[in-house]
Amino acid sequence: MNSHIITIGDEILVGQTVDTNSTFIAQQLNRIGITVTKIQSIKDERKAILETLDDTLDNNDIIILTGGLGPTNDDITKKVLTEYFNDELLLRPDILEHNQLFFKRFNKPFLEVNKQQAMLPKGAKIIKNDLGTASGMWWTLPKGKHIISLPGVPYEMKGLFKKILPDLKPLSSSKDGIFHHTLLFQGIGETKLAELLKETENEMKTKGITVSYLPSVAQVKLRLTGTILQKKDILTELEKIKQNLIKYCYGEGDELLEEILGKLLIKNKSTIGTVESCTGGALASKFVSTPGSSAYFQGGLLTYSNYLKQNIADVPNQLIKKYGAVSKEVVESMAENGRKKLEVDYCISTSGIAGPTGGTAEKPVGLVWIGIATSSKTYAKAFNFGHNRKRNIESTVYYALNYLRRILINVE
Amino acid sequence: MNSHIITIGDEILVGQTVDTNSTFIAQQLNRIGITVTKIQSIKDERKAILETLDDTLDNNDIIILTGGLGPTNDDITKKVLTEYFNDELLLRPDILEHNQLFFKRFNKPFLEVNKQQAMLPKGAKIIKNDLGTASGMWWTLPKGKHIISLPGVPYEMKGLFKKILPDLKPLSSSKDGIFHHTLLFQGIGETKLAELLKETENEMKTKGITVSYLPSVAQVKLRLTGTILQKKDILTELEKIKQNLIKYCYGEGDELLEEILGKLLIKNKSTIGTVESCTGGALASKFVSTPGSSAYFQGGLLTYSNYLKQNIADVPNQLIKKYGAVSKEVVESMAENGRKKLEVDYCISTSGIAGPTGGTAEKPVGLVWIGIATSSKTYAKAFNFGHNRKRNIESTVYYALNYLRRILINVE
Repeated sequence: MNSHIITIGDEILVGQTVDTNSTFIAQQLNRIGITVTKIQSIKDERKAILETLDDTLDNNDIIILTGGLGPTNDDITKKVLTEYFNDELLLRPDILEHNQLFFKRFNKPFLEVNKQQAMLPKGAKIIKNDLGTASGMWWTLPKGKHIISLPGVPYEMKGLFKKILPDLKPLSSSKDGIFHHTLLFQGIGETKLAELLKETENEMKTKGITVSYLPSVAQVKLRLTGTILQKKDILTELEKIKQNLIKYCYGEGDELLEEILGKLLIKNKSTIGTVESCTGGALASKFVSTPGSSAYFQGGLLTYSNYLKQNIADVPNQLIKKYGAVSKEVVESMAENGRKKLEVDYCISTSGIAGPTGGTAEKPVGLVWIGIATSSKTYAKAFNFGHNRKRNIESTVYYALNYLRRILINVE
Repeated sequence: MNSHIITIGDEILVGQTVDTNSTFIAQQLNRIGITVTKIQSIKDERKAILETLDDTLDNNDIIILTGGLGPTNDDITKKVLTEYFNDELLLRPDILEHNQLFFKRFNKPFLEVNKQQAMLPKGAKIIKNDLGTASGMWWTLPKGKHIISLPGVPYEMKGLFKKILPDLKPLSSSKDGIFHHTLLFQGIGETKLAELLKETENEMKTKGITVSYLPSVAQVKLRLTGTILQKKDILTELEKIKQNLIKYCYGEGDELLEEILGKLLIKNKSTIGTVESCTGGALASKFVSTPGSSAYFQGGLLTYSNYLKQNIADVPNQLIKKYGAVSKEVVESMAENGRKKLEVDYCISTSGIAGPTGGTAEKPVGLVWIGIATSSKTYAKAFNFGHNRKRNIESTVYYALNYLRRILINVE
């Protein structure tokens, strides 16, 4: 059971849009045991779509297309697919009504172009879009081939995908399927991790299980891939690795570090706040991005200027003068004072030279101090992340989150 | 002059990694007049790489591959390409030395697997990786075909790409090239924008210039695409649209709303701060993500809990009791008090029901109030963004930024 994902849209080929749709679809298909053998991004041109369908249909059982279903004239996917399958467009009154109501709900005028979106191919199963007005279309061909066309707006596509998932599942002959699972690491490099797991890797190889390392900013994912029949082996092995490297291994699969922290804080009935300089709210916003974070996240102080470090976080002026704003003493003061002012159990502080300018020989761009105040002790650590502003801020956020996790589970 | 991008890595096909590399490369190539006709993501398997090269070489002049050049065993791109081009791997002492120094600088042990990264194909031009240890490789074939292999770690790939760009430029016969330019809109929907530009669209069509609308969260991009010879026409037309729709059109090309605001604030010699509830620092972090933001961004108060709204932002308790935390009165109080406490010229406040729970009939999930205090007046506006927490936070950030921009340029 092979599948192939095709995203249609010039915006991807000119580099204007990142193709996150394929990522989502690939994730979902793999999870139900349908292997994705290729992802292609092509132009929204009749010829490109027709040629790609020709090339792809023979070797794949399921083809999922996204994009090109909007109301504007540059969206041609529906027309081209209808032509390819010798189908014809008919007005679907139920979809027309749905689309009209949709526009009414958001107080938008319903235009003639919007009406066109209710003209849909007779031979396809139509999947109503609850989050928009571009319907999904599913053609089933002889020899059990399936062609599914979804809109390109990510959240609409996701909504429709959830609706077709129950019908996709039975198509997967899951014994063919691959099984993979991932551990998530923070604070350890890819090479170092691979060295620690050298023996494991060789052992897995003899079983036909592949080991992959996927680095990203301040994090590494470790993935083991085998067949569905090796699921137990893979999970047992990963559990062993997780326990051995718990300092670095914060979670698995789709888990997010901020969610893991949220669960720990709820379990401990603890509250948290931040006093941020170089991260300027990026750390707090990680907490807030998690639903239900009001159970533990209370708030914070953003003291980007030295003036506000003194005036709203009560950092003594002489401390900044003596040690500089990027120092152990200042982040400790920020965290301790923040803990009191915000009335929280834990307070994380950050101060660093994010760059690209502002560095000195002694304190180069990329130097960041992170502080954490708890009821019993104040922790502080320096990091050196490098030259890129965005990476420095992102790295600071992840190191800070994992630093707190380590303190919460006593493996600091 | 056609090009094709191939990203190698199971992590993309299982949906674990979003392919941002292709986006970056496509952007860069289009900018110098090299058209990208297809982007493919394939498995890091010998067979998949060889087959894709076979399929792609005939119809393309430039093939850029990324991924699979790491030190770990799952990285096979270098081996397979060397095989495909009948090349051989030789030790490059200069690269070995560079890689050893690289590990030393970060206090990491240099291992045997790392040494393998200095074994490089004799027939390829080797491009030293200043940000890592995986070198780039560039094979030039007869008939002017170019195959370039770059590592998959985005910032290393970008660093190497910048190094090869001067050598790629002369390959483009720019008259063949397409030209496209983009306007960036906030606060107007795709359909509404298309309606306003109906006549323009028809006029462009007669000239062979295509008009595309690219919606994303709280924003729409408008792109006009023609040939390089139509550059002046396209830019003139876009300038006209921009001036007409200046309320919504905040910028063009790669510009970011937060950068535009930064420039306006610097020009006005004004300072800015935030008092955030539902955005929890996401708004402030947008300002801070821009290099040089310390010239205007001072700091903020994150008052996620009602307790902190009162205690650190001095919002009167009775105001919250009477109107609720998500109200005109409360965001006005947050913005005004924040303006004083942070000693800034402008203060933006946010308070909303981000969801997924917490909504009522009167105040549903997605209701957000945004306030802006200035020296002469306090503004406040309500928005209704819908059901998704992440989208609500992101939408709030973009609406708040554009709200401030509109006030700064007097088109509120």
